[in-house]
Amino acid sequence: MPRAVILLSGGLDSVTTLALARSQGFDCYALSVDYGQRHRRELECAAFQAKALGAAEHRVVRLDLRALGGSALTDAVDVPKDRGHDAIGTGIPITYVPARNTILLGLCLGYAEVVGAFDLFIGANAIDYSGYPDCRPEFLQAFERLANLATKAGVEGLGTFEVQAPLIRMTKAEIVKLGLSLGVDYGHTLSCYDPDDSGRPCGRCDSCQLRRKGFTEAGVTDPGN
Amino acid sequence: MPRAVILLSGGLDSVTTLALARSQGFDCYALSVDYGQRHRRELECAAFQAKALGAAEHRVVRLDLRALGGSALTDAVDVPKDRGHDAIGTGIPITYVPARNTILLGLCLGYAEVVGAFDLFIGANAIDYSGYPDCRPEFLQAFERLANLATKAGVEGLGTFEVQAPLIRMTKAEIVKLGLSLGVDYGHTLSCYDPDDSGRPCGRCDSCQLRRKGFTEAGVTDPGN
Repeated sequence: MPRAVILLSGGLDSVTTLALARSQGFDCYALSVDYGQRHRRELECAAFQAKALGAAEHRVVRLDLRALGGSALTDAVDVPKDRGHDAIGTGIPITYVPARNTILLGLCLGYAEVVGAFDLFIGANAIDYSGYPDCRPEFLQAFERLANLATKAGVEGLGTFEVQAPLIRMTKAEIVKLGLSLGVDYGHTLSCYDPDDSGRPCGRCDSCQLRRKGFTEAGVTDPGN
Repeated sequence: MPRAVILLSGGLDSVTTLALARSQGFDCYALSVDYGQRHRRELECAAFQAKALGAAEHRVVRLDLRALGGSALTDAVDVPKDRGHDAIGTGIPITYVPARNTILLGLCLGYAEVVGAFDLFIGANAIDYSGYPDCRPEFLQAFERLANLATKAGVEGLGTFEVQAPLIRMTKAEIVKLGLSLGVDYGHTLSCYDPDDSGRPCGRCDSCQLRRKGFTEAGVTDPGN
């Protein structure tokens, strides 16, 4: 079986991506990055899903991005609430973490070289998304090009790295339906920028709103978040 | 003064790069990454030089790359010794850290966005070097392209990110001479893949050999390493 590295946050999109990669026959090496996000429950969801969906391995790398600052997701800055769907996706919100996906995909690339994988799966989405520049197809293509220049495996021609973003053109409702068809238990996912102390979602940030819209449009009750 | 981020390991090349960026009039934000390298002295040299060379700020980000494995620099694997100059630079040695510079430049990019810098300085060298793919000009150019697609600052047109690798075509002797002309105290630098417990260089790894050759050819006694 070909091997793939899956960037697994524990949210709806990355978990669906893992389920899809498994259904396509990949041996999945899941990578979670503990970058000082606000709640441990996200990483617990990642660990649960790696096991439930049959990942070959799940590694957690600690990287304290708070040392760099600059984001409402890593600093003590308020996450915007109740922006409404017209506002979400217009402009880049303060929840943007500087260079986040460059760093996270860089770690995936390192892990891929170590385990001999050439496919990097990321749950990036350019439809129902928060407007981050590093979720766009042109960014992902540029990273793919970089990956093949950056690595021993790429330079020695052992294979060609590909960044796989299968959700990139899907609506949140389509993602939910896909995941359910693959047997994903969304009760163990967390998609919130500002959960409370016990890990319950706020229901009001961009991420919670996009998730709610997705389940509503899919005609399904959200078992989690 | 324009701001620049400098990737500062504490070795000869990165310290010279910091001195050069300062001499070019940049306000320098130095970034060191503690990725589980073998000795604290490297980070102590970085801190010393950031202060000595007048960096505006010096941040250290912890990232345990040992969680990914795959390199003699981060794992419990022997560093090659006494390879001789004919062997150094032919093929990619086991000291190669998978995706190292992709990850480190990604962190520099995040830091640059936070402080409003657009120039990323890295002491990469493609002449007297160990043969790593992510020190080559084509890699650095691909990263520059990525940086402008990856970031809020790039997308909003606040500036254009540039990867500056001023040492890329210099011999080690030229680097030593340049640094000395800029007043660098090389007594507080460490360029060794395998220092002993007290932080003294082994004298036999690729890095030690390249450094010795540089000082010899420059006709100068190495005050450090």
